[in-house]
Order: sequence, then structure tokens, then C-alpha cells
Amino acid sequence: MRYSLFAGGKRLRPTLVLSAAECCGLNPRKALKTAASLEMIHTYSLIHDDLPAMDDDDLRRGKPTNHKVFGEAMAVLAGDALLTKAFESAAENAADLGLNGARTAELVRLVAFGAGAEGMVGGQVADLAAEGLGRKMSKAAAARTLEAVHRRKTGALIIASLDAGAVLARAPQARRATLRRYGRCVGLAFQIADDVLDVVGDKKKLGKRGSDRENGKLTYASLYGVDAARGKARALVEAAHAHLKSFGTRASVLHELADYIIERDK
Amino acid sequence: MRYSLFAGGKRLRPTLVLSAAECCGLNPRKALKTAASLEMIHTYSLIHDDLPAMDDDDLRRGKPTNHKVFGEAMAVLAGDALLTKAFESAAENAADLGLNGARTAELVRLVAFGAGAEGMVGGQVADLAAEGLGRKMSKAAAARTLEAVHRRKTGALIIASLDAGAVLARAPQARRATLRRYGRCVGLAFQIADDVLDVVGDKKKLGKRGSDRENGKLTYASLYGVDAARGKARALVEAAHAHLKSFGTRASVLHELADYIIERDK
Repeated sequence: MRYSLFAGGKRLRPTLVLSAAECCGLNPRKALKTAASLEMIHTYSLIHDDLPAMDDDDLRRGKPTNHKVFGEAMAVLAGDALLTKAFESAAENAADLGLNGARTAELVRLVAFGAGAEGMVGGQVADLAAEGLGRKMSKAAAARTLEAVHRRKTGALIIASLDAGAVLARAPQARRATLRRYGRCVGLAFQIADDVLDVVGDKKKLGKRGSDRENGKLTYASLYGVDAARGKARALVEAAHAHLKSFGTRASVLHELADYIIERDK
Repeated sequence: MRYSLFAGGKRLRPTLVLSAAECCGLNPRKALKTAASLEMIHTYSLIHDDLPAMDDDDLRRGKPTNHKVFGEAMAVLAGDALLTKAFESAAENAADLGLNGARTAELVRLVAFGAGAEGMVGGQVADLAAEGLGRKMSKAAAARTLEAVHRRKTGALIIASLDAGAVLARAPQARRATLRRYGRCVGLAFQIADDVLDVVGDKKKLGKRGSDRENGKLTYASLYGVDAARGKARALVEAAHAHLKSFGTRASVLHELADYIIERDK
């Protein structure tokens, strides 16, 4: 659990939790346990995705993958325990802040929804199901499939991260909805940028071997070409900025995060 | 998810949730979503335990194991999604009942604790670590190892099931502690009975191939012999009955469950 959780990474999801909490008037330090929850969920998903039965990856964040170091059985269990711990940590956070029953339940429910069959895991299943289908579909159908996969596979947990921060800050529904709209834009932009990096990026900085292109996967870069994909990501980031207007200067970190998503090199 | 969740099974953990809730004065129907949570967690653990990298089992509850039907990748994901859904379902239950923030957080926390690194998953890790050690240890050391493994591997989730039912019923700490003591006894008795069944039981009724004995595993039957192990289980069940005294007739299902544990044939 520690090996993979502390292997580095961008810490995007916990940063989103903290920034959303701050944006809604809570000291971000008071959202740390939930920020950790979201990173635990992201990390567990990477450990399981890297398994031989799934993507069969040897390297992650520039280090040998969990199962390469500890064996497959331990990697499955480390992932399971991280996912479980995530809910414990979020519940503790709610209790520490003295949230009421409805908000506490809502926090757990929204994180589970973003991470589970309707969210991240469902997206992974849809991705496996779509494998090899790319070449057989029309461009419009491929675009719809791609967006449906990523809305769940990466988008749902990004939205849950923001919403979790907002719930911890006792934000009203309207604020939560605005942050989720921002999340939909940055989530999709993030995935498009990932696909572009997979083509033009530095393998060393990305810390992985092989690429989606080599594996013949349907990606934004293969579907639209690198330039058009970049343009799409930029437009989404602009839309993300626009959603933040009503938050004023408290949203400065979320503005920076939106820009970082398309400017990063790993 | 459905394939494994609805493959049958004894439904021990959900029955414990419902019975504990009833025992503490709540209509058991109002604890159904949490009862389902505990069965989802138990089922996910079976799916992952059966994987080739773990116990590599072909049969479970008399049917082909999840990965035999859907493949390893889907089995990993089905387990992940069931575990995630479990927390969603428990949180919904708390919200439906209008539990306050502290009780809602406590429900999620105690289920996660019983299921995670300090509970069930930790017990599974300890079990893997103890593999093959049985022959090298003194009888006393083997007994300590065995009990430490099972206290977490099966005991922790059984205790969590009872405690979850009690928390839903807004039970005071003393009642919760009494139910947990009952749980410690039935949990251990359940495991001992399992080990005895593995030796004397009907493979067909148990719905599995192979046995722990054939795999050279350390079990209560191998450590104490079948007769002494049976005696130990009976003594634990007696102790379990004694813990229920203060609950009166409301504990009738929990009394029956304790007896069932040593009388069952699968």
C-alpha cells in the first residue's frame, strides 16, 4: 500500500479536493483525509490496472509496478485495502468536521459513485469492451464511445474529488453543481492531453513503456489527430475557467490546475 | 457482480446485520441496505480469493468461479465494484434512517475497519504469509498464528456485521460491545467448523474441489484433530449464547445462528 501510494504521481485528485474545499470557504487542511481518500482510490485503480490480467504493465511512475515487486496476490490485496481505507478516511474526515448525517452520507455516496460501477470501474469495463472496436466504427460512433468511456474512467473520479471538497465545506447545491461542471471540462481535457502526451511525450518523463498507439487503442490523438485534439483540450480548459467566475479569487488554484492540465509534460 | 452476488451462499453476514439490528430494537427491514453491503464485501473477497494469483479455485458455491466465466480482468473489476458499492449502500441506509453525522461516519468506519488492512484483507495477507510455516512451528506458536489469522480473516467482518446492525439501531456502546463479544465467539467457532467440514464434509454440498488438507494448510482440524476442534467450537458457541442473555427473546435469531454454525453441513 505504501509502496504505490508514495511512488509519486501528480496528486491531481487530492489537489482538486483541497482546492474545491478552499474555493467553498473551508481551510484546505481540514479536507486532508478526504484528499488522501481520493489518492488512495486512484492508486488502487493503478495497481489493479497494471496487473497481468489487465494492462500487464511493468513500470508505473518510473518504478516497477506493485505486482512486479510484491507479486500478484499481494498487489490485488494492496489495492483492495487501499480502496477500503479510502472510505474509512473520508468518514473520519466527516466526523472530525462534525458534518451532519445527510452530508456525511452524501460524501461517502458520491465518492463511491465516482469510483464504482457507474464511475471509474464502469469506465474501465467499457474501455475493455471497446478494445479493438475503434477500427470498425464510424468516426462519430468512435467519438461517442471514447467520450462515454472517459467520462466514467477518469472524469467521474475527478468530479467526485471536487464535489467531495465542496461537501466537506458545506457548500450549497448550486456551488457543487458549478464545480462539477468545471470538473467535466478539466476531466475530459486531462484525458485528451494524456492521449496527446502518449504520442508526442517523453517516455522517460511519463515513466512508462510502450504506448496506446503501439497497442492500437482508440484515443483522441488517433481519432482527431494531435493538433485538433490539442485544440479541443484548449477549448475545454477555456470553458473550465469560465465556470469558475462566480468564485472570484478563491478559485485561483483551480484556475492554475486547468492550465497545468494542458501545459504539463508528464 | 450479479453472477457472484446471487450465486447463493449462506448469507451469514447479512443475517447477522439484520439480527443485530432487531436485537437492538430496529425493524430488520430497515437494515437491509447495510445487510446487502456486508454480503457484497464478502462476495468481492471470494471473487478475488478465487483468482489464479490467489487460491486459483475453479468452483465456488457449486458454480464456476467468476474469473472462469468472465475472465480475470472482469473478475478483478467486479470485485472492486462490489466493494465500492458496499459503502454506497451502507451510506444510503444511514441517510434513509436519518442517522446523525457521528453514527453515519461510525457505520462506514467500522465496516471499512472490519473489511480492510486491519481486518479481512489483513487476515488474508497474514494467511498468505503463514503458508507453509505450520510444519516449522511449535503447536503453541501455530495455534497463536492460526487464531491471529482468523480473527482478522473471517472474525473481523462477522463482528463488523453485528456492530453495523447495532449502530443502525442507535444502540448504546455497552450493547455494541456485548454483540461484538458474541461475534468474536461465533466468528472463531465458524472458522473451526469450516476446518472440520473441510475434513469430514461432503465436497458436493460444500461446492468446492480440493481441500485445505490436500493443500497442506494449517487448520484447526490439523492442529487439534477433528474431535478436539469440534469440542472447541461447541465451547465457543456456549460462550456466544451466554453473551446474549441480556437481550432476552429479541436475540432468538442470534441464538439459532450460533447453533447453526456448528450443526451445518456446508
